[in-house]
Amino acid sequence: MLTKNELKDIQSLCHKKQRDERGLFVAEGPKMAEELLNSNFEINQLYATKTYLEKHESFNCPAKEVTEDELQKMSNLTNANQVLLVAKQKEIEHIPNAENRITLLLDAIQDPGNMGTIIRIADWFGVNQIVCTIDCVELYNPKVVQSTMGSISRVDVWYMNVSEWLSHINVPVFGAMLNGNNIYSAKKIDEGILVIGNEGKGISEEIKSFITDAVTIPKLGGAESLNAAVATGIILGALRNL
Amino acid sequence: MLTKNELKDIQSLCHKKQRDERGLFVAEGPKMAEELLNSNFEINQLYATKTYLEKHESFNCPAKEVTEDELQKMSNLTNANQVLLVAKQKEIEHIPNAENRITLLLDAIQDPGNMGTIIRIADWFGVNQIVCTIDCVELYNPKVVQSTMGSISRVDVWYMNVSEWLSHINVPVFGAMLNGNNIYSAKKIDEGILVIGNEGKGISEEIKSFITDAVTIPKLGGAESLNAAVATGIILGALRNL
Repeated sequence: MLTKNELKDIQSLCHKKQRDERGLFVAEGPKMAEELLNSNFEINQLYATKTYLEKHESFNCPAKEVTEDELQKMSNLTNANQVLLVAKQKEIEHIPNAENRITLLLDAIQDPGNMGTIIRIADWFGVNQIVCTIDCVELYNPKVVQSTMGSISRVDVWYMNVSEWLSHINVPVFGAMLNGNNIYSAKKIDEGILVIGNEGKGISEEIKSFITDAVTIPKLGGAESLNAAVATGIILGALRNL
Repeated sequence: MLTKNELKDIQSLCHKKQRDERGLFVAEGPKMAEELLNSNFEINQLYATKTYLEKHESFNCPAKEVTEDELQKMSNLTNANQVLLVAKQKEIEHIPNAENRITLLLDAIQDPGNMGTIIRIADWFGVNQIVCTIDCVELYNPKVVQSTMGSISRVDVWYMNVSEWLSHINVPVFGAMLNGNNIYSAKKIDEGILVIGNEGKGISEEIKSFITDAVTIPKLGGAESLNAAVATGIILGALRNL
């Protein structure tokens, strides 16, 4: 049985201010639950329907049965999906190390779906660190969390003054620009930073000044641009040594 | 001044049944308007705010001024954006010809955002025909139309019995499968069909039987899958001769 206060507490986590203050976030559905329960995220509480609980022996966190109605009231989804977790936001102590690996750098990505999808793409291609400008959409926004499809548990994400960070690193910085090298004939890399710009404005002038290798997705048709997540997938896949 | 009946007529076009019966669809915003007004789509009526109309000399279709309030009432968007068009759905008379070109084949794509984004990707890579199974989301769904970002005006889309069609064509049929050839080392193509499967279930058994060239996006990390539109961009870009 869910108390009114408990419900209110969970619902309030749809607001960034509440998430920030309490250092918590919400994740939903069996796929997200499976991924988070097997990750180094700390789970404060699991809420699930009877059916879901009967299918699972035990959990390494407190679990509570709720009705379908109660779950729907807690949920950020149009159709609540069996299970909802309240988890602790992760604080990464170390500064990202850019050497001997690929890092994604996101410059003012605004759309939560794009952000989550980019995290999923990074995870697919074995990139486990993403550095974000402070004006990117928040990692723990429920739409971001859900669209990672669980990859949030395997990719470290920083929000920081990226210019400051870039000024101290010494690896190639790739950015999608007009008149760059064709990504399909560019040399493959195992080390470097790939910058993805804002959905409408592209890469900011400040960050552009750090780019050492401009790359371009060749265009044959009439579309003016590609979706930011799609572009990330195309460039990351083409540049990696696969 | 918008009459009540006019408003009701436009609002009703958010329902597929109404769109089908009347053979019309709605497109919104300056970018979509620019693209559609310069395409071979027939525009029945343009509705726009005073500001928008003042910026444009004339239109090759009937244009009517509406207030911001009226536009918002007609709109499918959270924030209506200056202009809304009611346009005629296109009927393509010929059967798609698969020779000497690349065709996308979509198998039960369900998400309107994915469908629109895939049309935009096709347009970027110069692919101007897409064949859809009849259970794909409808082309004229407002979310599909908007997420094409205007590419709907340059890409022909068919809904048909694709097995019947495939049984009469004689070009390579590529499909993303487990254990296919690495798309980054596969030979480049200028002719063929690329099959993209349903978001959850992948390619159906029926269509799988037509695939001549299984291809795979190499995976290095933990993500279980990629978004269907992202996968389309990665495979299409890697296979084309660019």
